[in-house]
Amino acid sequence: MSKLPDKHREFSAWYDAVIEEADIIDKRYPLKGMIVWKPYGFKALKLTMQILEKLLDEYGHEEAYFPMLVPEEVFAREKDFLEGFSGETFVVERTISKKLNRKLLLRPTSETVMYYMFSIWITSYRDLPIKLYQTVNVFRYETEQTKPIIRVREIVRFNEAHTVHKTLEEANKQIEEAIEIYSKFFDSLLIPYIILKTPKWDTFAGAEYNYDFFTVMPDRKAIELGSVINLGQKFARAFEIKFQDQDGKWKYVYQTCYGVSERVIGVLLSIHGDSRGIIWPPIVAPIQIVIVPIPSETMFDSILNKARKIEEKLRASGFRVKLDDRPDMTPGSKYFWWEFRGVPLRIEIGEKEVKEGKVTIARRDLMRRIVVNDDELEEAIKVLFKEISDELYRRAKEWLDSNIITATSIEDAAKKYNDVGGGIVRVPWCGEDQCGLAIEEKLGLEGLGYNPREKIEGSCVVCGKEAKYYFYVGKKY
Amino acid sequence: MSKLPDKHREFSAWYDAVIEEADIIDKRYPLKGMIVWKPYGFKALKLTMQILEKLLDEYGHEEAYFPMLVPEEVFAREKDFLEGFSGETFVVERTISKKLNRKLLLRPTSETVMYYMFSIWITSYRDLPIKLYQTVNVFRYETEQTKPIIRVREIVRFNEAHTVHKTLEEANKQIEEAIEIYSKFFDSLLIPYIILKTPKWDTFAGAEYNYDFFTVMPDRKAIELGSVINLGQKFARAFEIKFQDQDGKWKYVYQTCYGVSERVIGVLLSIHGDSRGIIWPPIVAPIQIVIVPIPSETMFDSILNKARKIEEKLRASGFRVKLDDRPDMTPGSKYFWWEFRGVPLRIEIGEKEVKEGKVTIARRDLMRRIVVNDDELEEAIKVLFKEISDELYRRAKEWLDSNIITATSIEDAAKKYNDVGGGIVRVPWCGEDQCGLAIEEKLGLEGLGYNPREKIEGSCVVCGKEAKYYFYVGKKY
Repeated sequence: MSKLPDKHREFSAWYDAVIEEADIIDKRYPLKGMIVWKPYGFKALKLTMQILEKLLDEYGHEEAYFPMLVPEEVFAREKDFLEGFSGETFVVERTISKKLNRKLLLRPTSETVMYYMFSIWITSYRDLPIKLYQTVNVFRYETEQTKPIIRVREIVRFNEAHTVHKTLEEANKQIEEAIEIYSKFFDSLLIPYIILKTPKWDTFAGAEYNYDFFTVMPDRKAIELGSVINLGQKFARAFEIKFQDQDGKWKYVYQTCYGVSERVIGVLLSIHGDSRGIIWPPIVAPIQIVIVPIPSETMFDSILNKARKIEEKLRASGFRVKLDDRPDMTPGSKYFWWEFRGVPLRIEIGEKEVKEGKVTIARRDLMRRIVVNDDELEEAIKVLFKEISDELYRRAKEWLDSNIITATSIEDAAKKYNDVGGGIVRVPWCGEDQCGLAIEEKLGLEGLGYNPREKIEGSCVVCGKEAKYYFYVGKKY
Repeated sequence: MSKLPDKHREFSAWYDAVIEEADIIDKRYPLKGMIVWKPYGFKALKLTMQILEKLLDEYGHEEAYFPMLVPEEVFAREKDFLEGFSGETFVVERTISKKLNRKLLLRPTSETVMYYMFSIWITSYRDLPIKLYQTVNVFRYETEQTKPIIRVREIVRFNEAHTVHKTLEEANKQIEEAIEIYSKFFDSLLIPYIILKTPKWDTFAGAEYNYDFFTVMPDRKAIELGSVINLGQKFARAFEIKFQDQDGKWKYVYQTCYGVSERVIGVLLSIHGDSRGIIWPPIVAPIQIVIVPIPSETMFDSILNKARKIEEKLRASGFRVKLDDRPDMTPGSKYFWWEFRGVPLRIEIGEKEVKEGKVTIARRDLMRRIVVNDDELEEAIKVLFKEISDELYRRAKEWLDSNIITATSIEDAAKKYNDVGGGIVRVPWCGEDQCGLAIEEKLGLEGLGYNPREKIEGSCVVCGKEAKYYFYVGKKY
């Protein structure tokens, strides 16, 4: 491996080098936008999704599985949804040797599949609320440029939650809960974010409104991390999902849904990585600790013994640990190898460590070493994991904050965006569609949304009337 | 819920009633052979696959993910494989609004997807062995009758392992290892089995030979639980998977693969269930213990308190436990409800239990109660789980054994098969294809295979020459 390209100036090259050479994925599969997840990367993805699934369980959701193929007539029931997804939804009409008598669509997301069933399941207020999720592969034929993990045609792990409620108020409360869950999730991945309500003209197909979580990538482009969507009663009407309430009346339900995908892995690799390669947050590191024995002519047996014992002990305590005993590699090349692959902690054991009953630990984030007594090792690791996590979050937060730029006029916004070289710009906005669209157009940037709770003073940068919110714009993945 | 149909005489009706009414799956999804997994059933499926994944990890396999869509030209490289799967493999040629410029196939299994990548990954003997697996959805357009969970068009959890080796000997050893892994897996699910080598004429498309695990369902039909396949060098030649060996020469690799699906859930529900409904093996029970408080006019608060404390304590100890505190249901209907849903243990807490510091535990398998002191509860549960598992396995083994019938001639086989009303019949066989095919034809049954290690004496029931093995036949799912 030669030197990595600069993470900020040549982000794409840095990203491609890191994800491929560190064995996260392989993009040589012969279909654009569909990649192979190698074991090292897939392990992190699995750990990541388990964190989210556990959170959803704790908040009273249940996991289920709904079919991947959708009959065309079911898919087509909600018109906005159909229109929104028709360009990117794959269709099956045959097997290799036979024609089918109907069209089956590959889910780009599972609203229609699930809501068809909800209309069968729900008849009474006693059947509500429903809070379900599934973690599945979904398919979107993106015509734009694909990017491994970040923008793909097979999303291999889409965690989508769907909820059904009696009242609008309950659905709104569910949106708050979803935001809380996702906040905890991204916090645990050490990804800082802002939460924005999507402007009306960009709202999810078939939804009343939605919130997106955004962060800023190393190339200063904004990226959507997850979406929380209030569907109102649109799908309830399209799918006739009704319940008989306590008052005896039949009413349409209110629905929400929210989703997150493997994209978060692409984001956390990008945000936390540095000029030496990946830095995994300890919580999702496929390998959290690597042990490297330092060869010695006189006492290599006892060194290797000590290394094996430590490996065994740490594994028994639940750490993901690996002893790198490859005989044909120098310690230095092993350090380099595992630094590139982002293992948060390295344990070095040589003559000195054996003689003195100590262990040398090296931190990946600060590239610093400390020495601890054998019997303090586990405690030290826990403290170091906490410190590494804090440090990674601190860096990431600093990066995000430095890329959210407040401007007071279109000219000011354009200048600052150019000076910083990207980022997310926010400008005072009256809240009207035509002014929001004008901001996008004048700046040549995409609208990301606004924070309805962030009431501001000042005047709209387009019409000059009283501003209500900041309108956030930037270039988006 | 009315009385269940008889499990043996009306197995299909029993099965349909149990899986739908106990909330395992919902088959009302409007595509034949594609079903919805409800949370209660999906939980068991997830636990089941985790057992297998853990075993595969312990035996040195790594989990990965390969794309679901296969370009037609990659799929078509191994001719036997293409022919074997062409009728049942779905094809994508377009999105809703656009035609694609190539055909993409939905994986019916992932040989071709993976082996394309293996041909890129493998260049040296140092790259071998490879032992990978993935747990994914696969698609097979079965033209025969579908049956929920057992024979479906979307297999939602297919665990497929694929290995690559330098030598035939190593590949053969891998087959032994796979058989060991699957044996442990089915043992842990309390499913007894026989392992048979598939006759040549039924061997997996593209394989040298394969072994299948079989058991017998309540209607006395045989069912395949899993397959272990030696691919030899067929795919290596089709995909040009070669490595440079230590002697400097380029050689084709040897490959194996083995797979298991959610079908095992259908099988274990069928085998362990009884006239009252499901009986889950404790190891995969979505709920292992249900706590039912018995109402009391004078001391219901302390009863409910005790129930809550026990729930909390058992959950903290890692048991999957549920307190059924529905106020509008009698204890009797709760007993019935959870018996039907197969929860292995029920804890009853009433006045007596509170006053005496005891707990009443009811076993689902034997419908028997025991009383233990509060402080003996956890230990008692562990012992009971072991006893229930032993009892379920004993019953299942007895069933399987009573359905494997040895016969000495075609007439004898036909008579015994009729007398028993199904099962698996085995007859002495010389090992020649034409005699095996004749046995199938004369009995009107399907060949399941033979056990090469089970050398026998006697004469072939067709040609009269010296017999080598028993040939096993039956009706197959």
